[in-house]
Amino acid sequence: MYRRFIAATCLIWAGHAGAAELSPQLQARAAELMARALQANEAYTSVESLTTEVGPRLAGSPAEARARQWAVARLAELGFSNVRVETFQVAHWRRGEEVAEIVAPFPQSLTIATLGGSLATPAEGVQAEVIAFASLAELLAAPAATVRGKIVFIDEPMTRTQDGSGYAVAGAKRWQAAYAAEQLGASAVLIRSVGTSHDRFAHTGQMGPRDQASGDGVPAAALSAPDADQLARVLGRGLPVVVKLVLRPTVEAVAESGNVIAELPGLEAVDEIVLAGAHLDSWDLGTGAVDDAAGVGIVTGAAALIAEVLSRPTRRTIRVVLFGAEETGLAGARAYAERHARELPRHVVAVESDFGAGNIWRFDTAVPEDKLEIAAAIGAVLRPLGIGPGNNSARGGPDLGFMRAAGVPVVGLKQNGWDYFDLHHTANDTLDKLVPGALDQNVAAYAAFLYLVADSEVELR
Amino acid sequence: MYRRFIAATCLIWAGHAGAAELSPQLQARAAELMARALQANEAYTSVESLTTEVGPRLAGSPAEARARQWAVARLAELGFSNVRVETFQVAHWRRGEEVAEIVAPFPQSLTIATLGGSLATPAEGVQAEVIAFASLAELLAAPAATVRGKIVFIDEPMTRTQDGSGYAVAGAKRWQAAYAAEQLGASAVLIRSVGTSHDRFAHTGQMGPRDQASGDGVPAAALSAPDADQLARVLGRGLPVVVKLVLRPTVEAVAESGNVIAELPGLEAVDEIVLAGAHLDSWDLGTGAVDDAAGVGIVTGAAALIAEVLSRPTRRTIRVVLFGAEETGLAGARAYAERHARELPRHVVAVESDFGAGNIWRFDTAVPEDKLEIAAAIGAVLRPLGIGPGNNSARGGPDLGFMRAAGVPVVGLKQNGWDYFDLHHTANDTLDKLVPGALDQNVAAYAAFLYLVADSEVELR
Repeated sequence: MYRRFIAATCLIWAGHAGAAELSPQLQARAAELMARALQANEAYTSVESLTTEVGPRLAGSPAEARARQWAVARLAELGFSNVRVETFQVAHWRRGEEVAEIVAPFPQSLTIATLGGSLATPAEGVQAEVIAFASLAELLAAPAATVRGKIVFIDEPMTRTQDGSGYAVAGAKRWQAAYAAEQLGASAVLIRSVGTSHDRFAHTGQMGPRDQASGDGVPAAALSAPDADQLARVLGRGLPVVVKLVLRPTVEAVAESGNVIAELPGLEAVDEIVLAGAHLDSWDLGTGAVDDAAGVGIVTGAAALIAEVLSRPTRRTIRVVLFGAEETGLAGARAYAERHARELPRHVVAVESDFGAGNIWRFDTAVPEDKLEIAAAIGAVLRPLGIGPGNNSARGGPDLGFMRAAGVPVVGLKQNGWDYFDLHHTANDTLDKLVPGALDQNVAAYAAFLYLVADSEVELR
Repeated sequence: MYRRFIAATCLIWAGHAGAAELSPQLQARAAELMARALQANEAYTSVESLTTEVGPRLAGSPAEARARQWAVARLAELGFSNVRVETFQVAHWRRGEEVAEIVAPFPQSLTIATLGGSLATPAEGVQAEVIAFASLAELLAAPAATVRGKIVFIDEPMTRTQDGSGYAVAGAKRWQAAYAAEQLGASAVLIRSVGTSHDRFAHTGQMGPRDQASGDGVPAAALSAPDADQLARVLGRGLPVVVKLVLRPTVEAVAESGNVIAELPGLEAVDEIVLAGAHLDSWDLGTGAVDDAAGVGIVTGAAALIAEVLSRPTRRTIRVVLFGAEETGLAGARAYAERHARELPRHVVAVESDFGAGNIWRFDTAVPEDKLEIAAAIGAVLRPLGIGPGNNSARGGPDLGFMRAAGVPVVGLKQNGWDYFDLHHTANDTLDKLVPGALDQNVAAYAAFLYLVADSEVELR
């Protein structure tokens, strides 16, 4: 749809854009980039290649190291300069055996995924009666005497939303339940998966950040939605329900991870950085096609298109950062912010693609009042892609948090997350789930946005 | 929708039905049963109870024995007479460890399910280069020299169809590949799952029947569709692809299974049997809600409704048979046909519900030419449920084959199978996948059909 639509409408919209910094020539060039992106770009090739030739790539693993090698080769192939790896250390948590079964009253197995960072159970497992709570808040309010020695089950569903706002609510139990349960003397934790699908996939994901007061937590796993339903039904029969849980993850305390960085150096202001990020690591269950090979494909594809059309930006440097170890606690984001601390004041803007592969529907910013006009003008250029105006409370992607705290302006090219949490952190996050047309629309938006900021004197601080 | 529709239209249709055997009173009573079924019936309660309180129930397992206990109690509760178990012996094949990984060139794990009846690999697994074929036919035509020692991968997709006709084509590789590969000297077999979903579930299912000439086959497993895609992509890179496969099933040679039988005895012709079947066993991965707790719920619910409304049929006996060990080779069907051989000439008709939980859309028969008119008259009574005329080549359900061969007339109340093979034989076959309205429509059709044949002198032989 976009392919036919764009050629006719971009120039019309371009003529309406308001702010002086965006010259008609700049807007026409952005429209050309969008049209080109919708015709052909390198994003899908990158996603296919990364997910096929590397596959799952958990932080600190040999596979993540292969992903860095892949990225270095791919970025060089796409014409980037200054391609490099900046390494840092992480703990390498590895999933092990994971088995859950209802022992009584109705023996049957349950589909689970150990939560990232969880402690292991003894080899023989933990076997205990289950006590159910409707939410993390309900667990936090429970008397320890009712919980002690039991397996805590938190059966809180997630609300499906376009903007992903259900995640913060439903995610709380994943982040905190193991620590809260430990304080109450529980033996283990099961949560309903933080996800929106009713297929029988358990959603993994990192626990924490750890509350300093509460130790290392108890062993913790997520049940698939049908299994949470099943456990709830079994509990509903009114008999004591006993579950056995075997979780055998291991941790290598010090392993290597790294960020892969590549640039299109600007001609006039090479030290002014327009940063486009995504994360290279993935969870171990799927091939991370949607989370976040898609983002890798989008930001590298957008910048590569600019390189192809313009050779290099007239003014500022476009820097692509493929972060390592995002999923297990943002170690790559922290490492980047620390290592580049002195450069951050010259980061003009940062944007990250890490919300799947759906169409972008909204342009959010986080700029001072006097920059709203230029932000709106940029947004207007993106309008023909079906992208509407958003709010001025953008938080950027997860890897931009440290930069944002250091004063780097961020924007959000918000993807439609309606289906994102059907796949998020499951074995089902595989290449076939991508819709190529949506990927193209993302590349178009990123290419136009990066170009407009890199080839102009736009200031968003 | 059906609930409002039926009351107004059944009587009109009833007035149009043709054959003399179906009196207006009989047709009015059938319409009443359908209307009642659409308002309330016991099917969903049975499906919920069986899948929750028993869960997966593989042939010969302790869980299948619990399912028989469940069925005896449930059938008595629903008002059936002569509730009994007829046991027989089966081999109890049990899934064990199952691990597949691409070792080279791109190391990563693959999602698989061991095929039912497969031999085990050695504990350390089988590791070999993969050779791919587009179909079973292509494997059968291959020179042994190209296959010897390799892992055969048959990458044949399944066509999605409403009537399930894609299954026989796509299923051939599951039934025969392990034996064909053994004859060519292969070390193991991987097939693309016999299924239509692109979710990351591997579809299990029984191998065979075994060709007497070809031994026990090689160890064999199914890949989920995304994993078959992935393996095909990796092979497409043109490098040798090495896979390691560990399959550790075990077999208990002699275990107990059984059919559960219950009746509504007829008043005038108690020895004339109208048989409604479904199967009680399921594969081990899911809770078998769709395959075939749904069928259990439908046929028991339909007969129970007749018992509730009529107390017992005026003429013939309605016999519900919940077959054991259907999935692993129809042992229950064979046992029933043998044990009841002398009764089979007095089986007026047999019908089975074993194609999921979709709406019935077609009424198929297998009757002599001179019975087509009465068959059409029965079909006309079902028409308000959205059921159209079918063909006269009905094969009945899988458990009716031996009876059909012995001359028992069968009909097919064909369910819409469009989505059935998305779930079939996967871990994702769970209660939440049922659409209660469709279950009600099935109960309505079975109740009307069983009643029309049991309360009349209709002959279909």
